[in-house]
Amino acid sequence: MYDVIIIGSGPAGLVSAMYTARLRLKSLVLQDLNLPSQILFTEKIENFPGFPESITPAELLDRFKKQAQNFGASFSKEKVIKIEKEKNFWKIKTDKGNYQTISIIVASGAHPKRLKVEGEDEFLGRGVSFCAVCDAPFFKNKEIVVVGGGDTAVEETLYLAKFAKKITLIHRRSSLRATKILQERLFSLPQLKIEWNSVLKKIEGKDRVEKVKIVNIQTQEEKEIACQGVFIFVGIVPNTEFLKDIVALDENGFVIVDKKMKTDQEGIFACGDCTDISLRQVVVASGCAAIASISAKEYIEKVKGIEYK
Amino acid sequence: MYDVIIIGSGPAGLVSAMYTARLRLKSLVLQDLNLPSQILFTEKIENFPGFPESITPAELLDRFKKQAQNFGASFSKEKVIKIEKEKNFWKIKTDKGNYQTISIIVASGAHPKRLKVEGEDEFLGRGVSFCAVCDAPFFKNKEIVVVGGGDTAVEETLYLAKFAKKITLIHRRSSLRATKILQERLFSLPQLKIEWNSVLKKIEGKDRVEKVKIVNIQTQEEKEIACQGVFIFVGIVPNTEFLKDIVALDENGFVIVDKKMKTDQEGIFACGDCTDISLRQVVVASGCAAIASISAKEYIEKVKGIEYK
Repeated sequence: MYDVIIIGSGPAGLVSAMYTARLRLKSLVLQDLNLPSQILFTEKIENFPGFPESITPAELLDRFKKQAQNFGASFSKEKVIKIEKEKNFWKIKTDKGNYQTISIIVASGAHPKRLKVEGEDEFLGRGVSFCAVCDAPFFKNKEIVVVGGGDTAVEETLYLAKFAKKITLIHRRSSLRATKILQERLFSLPQLKIEWNSVLKKIEGKDRVEKVKIVNIQTQEEKEIACQGVFIFVGIVPNTEFLKDIVALDENGFVIVDKKMKTDQEGIFACGDCTDISLRQVVVASGCAAIASISAKEYIEKVKGIEYK
Repeated sequence: MYDVIIIGSGPAGLVSAMYTARLRLKSLVLQDLNLPSQILFTEKIENFPGFPESITPAELLDRFKKQAQNFGASFSKEKVIKIEKEKNFWKIKTDKGNYQTISIIVASGAHPKRLKVEGEDEFLGRGVSFCAVCDAPFFKNKEIVVVGGGDTAVEETLYLAKFAKKITLIHRRSSLRATKILQERLFSLPQLKIEWNSVLKKIEGKDRVEKVKIVNIQTQEEKEIACQGVFIFVGIVPNTEFLKDIVALDENGFVIVDKKMKTDQEGIFACGDCTDISLRQVVVASGCAAIASISAKEYIEKVKGIEYK
């Protein structure tokens, strides 16, 4: 019987691992290798406090993990299949085994949203990408299309601009939602063209992407744009499939938590990008993970009937 | 007219400065030198994510400040006297001048609670201390008394044990509230004695502390303990005097905030130890500061009627 099982190994999972290990709880982190942390989709992080010279996401994750291991945290590469309540503990079934635990901290993160247009799945990895940092170098001196208008779309476009010779940004509104400083940088890109009030309709090609069809939603005018790459940044979907019918989720599938990171189920806490906390930033996920860990500790002590002395 | 004025320069204030500067808001941080950050009362920080080898609070604050300055944040050493609403902006009066700002982020922190016993004020700086890191070296090979039972009391006692030859911990309950790992370390101190169910009644001496009187609240038995130092760690009080009648505070004076760090007054946000967020940790204050900054930005855009394009 574990005190706490942490599902996920991004910033929220690793900080939960560090805090719960430091609290001397018997804990285990389950890492699903098919769900890499979203921060790995970023080139560098310049706004995590404490790193004025910026830091790569891989190095930051390494540091988080090392710190958790210093306090004795354990890790196992397993995918969670099912969670079930049993008396006053929880059963977790993974692709490798079964666990019993008093509490759970869900830190399972999120993944990029799909447009669900023709060609999107067909050309994935052959011109269609959800990750500039992963794939940008393949598009050196190529023409690409970017879909989206939030911070992520703009940040990824700025990175793509180091490689691509022409970028067309397709956005369904007449203005961007992204932070002003990012917009300033975006608008200064010489190779950028923006198609306002437009949506992507279709991705076409033979073996690889060759062009896209877009439509202006105000004029209904259609247009073809020749391109070798399509980068899609239109939002994220929480990795919470395994929690359906277990804890309360909002209309988009994010776990509903209170200020103490409690879900509606006693003993299940959540933090990071899988929750309905508005701001998806490493520092926010980290702070919420600390809170979730303390809440889990208080719950565990209550269940065990111990007051440490 | 500023976009945002940040009151306080601990972790919450500095992270707010960094985020708002990066958002290209016109911001100013007001630092009250009489209210040093609570983290400076700690020897080292081993649970701020990203620093597996631990870091001193002074170095961490330096790094936070440098990062804020990299993005263009401004600082001024001024004490806030009064805040007043005027149309759709706020007026701030300090000991040096007057400011107008659309929004305010309160990050004014907290300070140690007093016991309010005889001798406490009289012997402050002459044996009575609220800060082990500041004063412990003065008590090398001396006998000291520590009052408290939470994480802070235990952490500070562990630090004091590097200097003092005898430590008596006075705690009003029969068990400690502190984290288990800290308790384990505490109980292993050879020079420690604990007086359970006891409270400090009086601090006595001539020029400096010479002894304390304690009383066991179960047996009413009184006892004198000879000592040269008294360290008091019985909780913290938020630095929110200047907010009375301005924003809603809880019964202990902490600013009541929602999940977006909004207070009950439009345009005033708060984060860090001055708020009613349960967990007083640097990483939590930092995460809340990021949220407060984005909430301030959204409010400023609404007031100015701008949508950035």
